[in-house]
Amino acid sequence: MTLVKAYAAHKADKPLEPFQLERREPGSDDVEIKILYCGVCHSDIHTVRNEWGGTMYPVVPGHEIVGRVTRTGNGVSKFKEGDLVGVGCFVDSCRECNNCREGNEQYCENGHSQTYNSLLQDKKTITYGGYSSHIVVTQDFVLRVPESLPAEKVAPLLCAGITTYSPLRHWGVKKGDKVAVVGLGGLGHMAVKLAASMGAEVTMLSRSPGKEKDAQELGAHHFALTINQQTVAGLANTFDFIIDTVSAEHDYNSYLAMLRTNGVMVLLGVPPKPSDVHAVSLILGRRSLVGSLVGGIKETQEMLDYCAEHNITSDVEVIPMSRINEAYERTISGDVHYRFVIDMSTLD
Amino acid sequence: MTLVKAYAAHKADKPLEPFQLERREPGSDDVEIKILYCGVCHSDIHTVRNEWGGTMYPVVPGHEIVGRVTRTGNGVSKFKEGDLVGVGCFVDSCRECNNCREGNEQYCENGHSQTYNSLLQDKKTITYGGYSSHIVVTQDFVLRVPESLPAEKVAPLLCAGITTYSPLRHWGVKKGDKVAVVGLGGLGHMAVKLAASMGAEVTMLSRSPGKEKDAQELGAHHFALTINQQTVAGLANTFDFIIDTVSAEHDYNSYLAMLRTNGVMVLLGVPPKPSDVHAVSLILGRRSLVGSLVGGIKETQEMLDYCAEHNITSDVEVIPMSRINEAYERTISGDVHYRFVIDMSTLD
Repeated sequence: MTLVKAYAAHKADKPLEPFQLERREPGSDDVEIKILYCGVCHSDIHTVRNEWGGTMYPVVPGHEIVGRVTRTGNGVSKFKEGDLVGVGCFVDSCRECNNCREGNEQYCENGHSQTYNSLLQDKKTITYGGYSSHIVVTQDFVLRVPESLPAEKVAPLLCAGITTYSPLRHWGVKKGDKVAVVGLGGLGHMAVKLAASMGAEVTMLSRSPGKEKDAQELGAHHFALTINQQTVAGLANTFDFIIDTVSAEHDYNSYLAMLRTNGVMVLLGVPPKPSDVHAVSLILGRRSLVGSLVGGIKETQEMLDYCAEHNITSDVEVIPMSRINEAYERTISGDVHYRFVIDMSTLD
Repeated sequence: MTLVKAYAAHKADKPLEPFQLERREPGSDDVEIKILYCGVCHSDIHTVRNEWGGTMYPVVPGHEIVGRVTRTGNGVSKFKEGDLVGVGCFVDSCRECNNCREGNEQYCENGHSQTYNSLLQDKKTITYGGYSSHIVVTQDFVLRVPESLPAEKVAPLLCAGITTYSPLRHWGVKKGDKVAVVGLGGLGHMAVKLAASMGAEVTMLSRSPGKEKDAQELGAHHFALTINQQTVAGLANTFDFIIDTVSAEHDYNSYLAMLRTNGVMVLLGVPPKPSDVHAVSLILGRRSLVGSLVGGIKETQEMLDYCAEHNITSDVEVIPMSRINEAYERTISGDVHYRFVIDMSTLD
């Protein structure tokens, strides 16, 4: 075991603070990574504050990890010391179920091992995430990170990037499609960039007039203010695809009405309460309301390579580890463009 | 104009009664049909009682029509006198929008003309349905009915049949797929027959233990009592496709949980109030909640030919026109196996 520096929360109502963590010695298939950057996802906050229940304290969050390989096990063929690599939302899965065999480890039927606040496949070892100096991960769940992109801006791709890329690919968004994005945060800003890069005509749907300029800078072709009922009515039957990234309570039906025949609205955010859905919102126009959860390992690699090819990264604000609690408050109030990323060298 | 016998409702709270109706002389592209049988759809009742609003009285319901051609216009090439034909839920559409051009007239962007309580494409002539001795319909919206099937059992295929056939085809249900059907009425019994005929392994989900035998007779391979919470829990992640035909209020989430990864639940019924949907019900397993409305003309013809080939018809109880009001009450209480069909010769 190696003792490494980290930040952990010990209780739902306590700030994160310095912590020491034991990482396993790299086994045959393991890759030891010195973490350079770790993104701050809203899930980190939900987990730290036990808002979804089931938090095992102390918890070390972080699942948007970029770092360099420091050691590898004897059986590791995919990576060598010095490689720039990434780790996303999970670090192992059963590898045997239909979903795992099809590369959809995010839907592992026997339960994948999330990067933090989860159990490894031995079903007893608790996982600790990227708010730490090092992590040890089995090679099949480590991603190659293109050296051409700034590493700090790549970190959020491991969650926010793949979460938006995967549904765009799965539902076949293509050149000329009309895509709307609801909510301009960590997920939303990646959805705009990725959909635009695929040739879609992108509309940002927002309740804040102040976001128009931001949306256009990210590549949105149109901006629609959804507090204006006339604007909403004028968008009826318009979009092929709506990416809904909002985690606050909101009405799905008003967005469903904006879908064209056979249109698809994908939910990525989890509001605290369920939302009403009228059957007619779906029946008229054969519309689909769907959900999507991050993406599989193979698809995450594909996304990273795609982002390198198209020079797409996340817009980030880099912070030292010591400012994490302030960053949480600012994330909650939406005061970030668009993702905090922790510079892990500040942990030393 | 030709004066024909019919049954109409004059007010939401009045029974249907004998009525006389003017049908247009067949124009160049028109087909005049002597109606042999007309099915009784729950939509007829909703419309007669103005439960959806917008009923134009007097209303002559009926959109599950089978009859024989009596006259044709000069431009009619598709049909001749004596042909056995059908008319479903709509009798015209704009024919120009994308959906019409793709054969999805049910989603006509400019508004199709429904068979009753609707306007023709002149946007002023009110339509009257199949509870009448004759109907005149433009040839492109008339279906060929295979002579090999009993006409009275074909009538419900024009709505209940196509409404269940279309989503099974659109979402590609195939041999070996696990399909669940919720609700055993006019739609549900057709869903069971059609899904089974396509090679799916069909489970009837019902709250009534008494329906087990019926479901098996229709071709369901399994029966699950959804009032039993243990049964419901045991069905988690089971089905590829769920056909929900229920129009009463019910919880979608408990059914969504029964879908496998990438599973689809299609809503065909319209409950009076919206239902709660949890985003996680969709996100975990990349599940889809979708809707579907009848089917296009081309697909309806395909369905009729498919039913002839596979000897599939509706289970019906034939009634004289004079018993229509009693049939409405029995339909509402679910006391029919599974569709009332009016013998239109009783109108004479």
